Amino acid sequence: MSAAAAAKAAVQAVSRRLIPMFDRVVVEKAEAVTRTKGGIVIPEKAQGKVLQGTIVAVGPGGRNERGDTIPLSVAVGDNVLLPEYGGTKIELDDAELFIYREHDILAKLNK
Amino acid sequence: MSAAAAAKAAVQAVSRRLIPMFDRVVVEKAEAVTRTKGGIVIPEKAQGKVLQGTIVAVGPGGRNERGDTIPLSVAVGDNVLLPEYGGTKIELDDAELFIYREHDILAKLNK
Amino acid sequence: MSAAAAAKAAVQAVSRRLIPMFDRVVVEKAEAVTRTKGGIVIPEKAQGKVLQGTIVAVGPGGRNERGDTIPLSVAVGDNVLLPEYGGTKIELDDAELFIYREHDILAKLNK
Amino acid sequence: MSAAAAAKAAVQAVSRRLIPMFDRVVVEKAEAVTRTKGGIVIPEKAQGKVLQGTIVAVGPGGRNERGDTIPLSVAVGDNVLLPEYGGTKIELDDAELFIYREHDILAKLNK
Amino acid sequence: MSAAAAAKAAVQAVSRRLIPMFDRVVVEKAEAVTRTKGGIVIPEKAQGKVLQGTIVAVGPGGRNERGDTIPLSVAVGDNVLLPEYGGTKIELDDAELFIYREHDILAKLNK
Amino acid sequence: MSAAAAAKAAVQAVSRRLIPMFDRVVVEKAEAVTRTKGGIVIPEKAQGKVLQGTIVAVGPGGRNERGDTIPLSVAVGDNVLLPEYGGTKIELDDAELFIYREHDILAKLNK
Amino acid sequence: MSAAAAAKAAVQAVSRRLIPMFDRVVVEKAEAVTRTKGGIVIPEKAQGKVLQGTIVAVGPGGRNERGDTIPLSVAVGDNVLLPEYGGTKIELDDAELFIYREHDILAKLNK
Repeated sequence: MSAAAAAKAAVQAVSRRLIPMFDRVVVEKAEAVTRTKGGIVIPEKAQGKVLQGTIVAVGPGGRNERGDTIPLSVAVGDNVLLPEYGGTKIELDDAELFIYREHDILAKLNK
Repeated sequence: MSAAAAAKAAVQAVSRRLIPMFDRVVVEKAEAVTRTKGGIVIPEKAQGKVLQGTIVAVGPGGRNERGDTIPLSVAVGDNVLLPEYGGTKIELDDAELFIYREHDILAKLNK
Repeated sequence: MSAAAAAKAAVQAVSRRLIPMFDRVVVEKAEAVTRTKGGIVIPEKAQGKVLQGTIVAVGPGGRNERGDTIPLSVAVGDNVLLPEYGGTKIELDDAELFIYREHDILAKLNK
Repeated sequence: MSAAAAAKAAVQAVSRRLIPMFDRVVVEKAEAVTRTKGGIVIPEKAQGKVLQGTIVAVGPGGRNERGDTIPLSVAVGDNVLLPEYGGTKIELDDAELFIYREHDILAKLNK
Repeated sequence: MSAAAAAKAAVQAVSRRLIPMFDRVVVEKAEAVTRTKGGIVIPEKAQGKVLQGTIVAVGPGGRNERGDTIPLSVAVGDNVLLPEYGGTKIELDDAELFIYREHDILAKLNK
Repeated sequence: MSAAAAAKAAVQAVSRRLIPMFDRVVVEKAEAVTRTKGGIVIPEKAQGKVLQGTIVAVGPGGRNERGDTIPLSVAVGDNVLLPEYGGTKIELDDAELFIYREHDILAKLNK
Repeated sequence: MSAAAAAKAAVQAVSRRLIPMFDRVVVEKAEAVTRTKGGIVIPEKAQGKVLQGTIVAVGPGGRNERGDTIPLSVAVGDNVLLPEYGGTKIELDDAELFIYREHDILAKLNK
């Protein structure tokens, strides 16, 4: 199995075991984009501060002031834009994932 | 295709793929105004701190304390005034856009 | 047209195009008062820290916790007292205006 | 007209024109008490940090979370105790007044 | 009249004139306890940081989020424990009193 | 009467006189545990940062946003775990007690 | 009894006596993972900042704005992911445990 496939499998295995709490979601970050579509190399410093990632696990949702759960508006498989800062890194069984709160996610990005 | 047209097309392509979360909106900033209507050159330092931009994508709206979604009061195509600070820069497929929260937008500006 | 009249016209033109967001209002600041009614010159440092201005455009109103809009208690044409700090300066088509939140305005001042 | 009378008239004229916003009130501060009732001179540093004043104009009241206006519990003519800090100074047509929020006022002081 | 009696009378006179605002109360502080019950002198530094006092005037009560007044749970005459910090000192007509918010009072202390 | 008994009596006497305000409770702290159950001496620095204590007086409870009182979930006699910091020390009639807010208490500890 | 078994017994004994307050839970932290599944030693600095632990005692739940108790969404026996910081250490009868608030827990981790 290639390294990429092995990494993919590790992420899937861990994601299946994770139930994020409340309005948290688990994201697998995409590789940083280092070339423009035209092929021009983007210097490290100029690489987009906004990161992309895919949601691999979602919590039940946050609570309103009365304690009722508010369902999330993102789902497993969604491609999302993430802020430069924030997110908690998890390293489990060779998988590197990040936990975000729903309200920190900037946008969904359709293919 | 001219550079401007290419830039325009890149923005449109990315905007169609973006679904901002909650009360966020995506804005394409207008070029900084460097001359008065009378043609006088405005020195860099004195250029208006308030920026203009056009909304290219909108989220569903923020949530009130009970979790209900409150529709936005701006729409795609609106010309808006933006504060000097704030906004998250997104660089995607040669398009440079900015994400703002609705409540950071100062005003709508009719043509 | 005199400079004052031109400035007046520029403000009116821009004000008609502006729709402030939520509980924001647009104010044209009055000239700083540099003499007492008795004609005594007020040194710069001692000039009243509170400024006067006239409201030239108003938003729909802020939102309460449920998301309902609460109408503003000031209107276009009101003469108001403004705090020394706060307010966002807008420079548009030779007009210099300021955006305030309704709750930052200290008082209305009848003629 | 004596200086005191003129000052009194200036305050009354300005107060009639002022409509404080929300839960703000306008206060005319009393002269600092520099002698005890027994006639002993109070050194500057020891003068009571709490100030007295008379309310000369009142706003409609603050808003609760739903946006309803809550009437004030002070009225024009009330003699009040003010904290050492806070309050915005207004200098208008030779009158020196101060704007406070209702909740900053410490107590009413009957004659 | 003895100094103590005069001080007592001054406090009573001022207290009758004071109507604290909202959830504020006026307290006359007790003398600091400098000896244990067994007569041992307590060094200044070790004297109890918590102070005692008697309530001499009470406000109507604070407001809840809707603006309704919530009656106080202390009354004139109650002996209370006060935190080391907080409280605003008032010096009026030879009386030295302190204004506290109800929620700063630690406890009532029965005789 | 032994010193311990005298201290006990002093605490009981003071506790009976104390009515903590709102959601406050009065706690008598237990002696710091300096030996493990196995008898090993615990160095000062390593002694558990969490303290134990017994509740000797309770307030009526805190208030919710409408001003209703919410009864406490601890009672006189409960053995509790206390955080390292927080709590106000009271020294009254040779009794040394501490006032905590209910929400600062970590847990109840059954015998 | 082995040291591990003794430690286990100590934890169980203390857990049975603990009733965390409100939305707090008691966690027994797992040993830090120092090798990858492939057996590679993970240097101290690179060890996952996120910790694992097992819940050994739970409170009744937190309160909403009206004071109603909201049941917890974790239970005794759940394996959880914990943030690097936060948590209060308790050392009781040779057991080392940690108290967390429910909302600090990142996720549940199924076996």
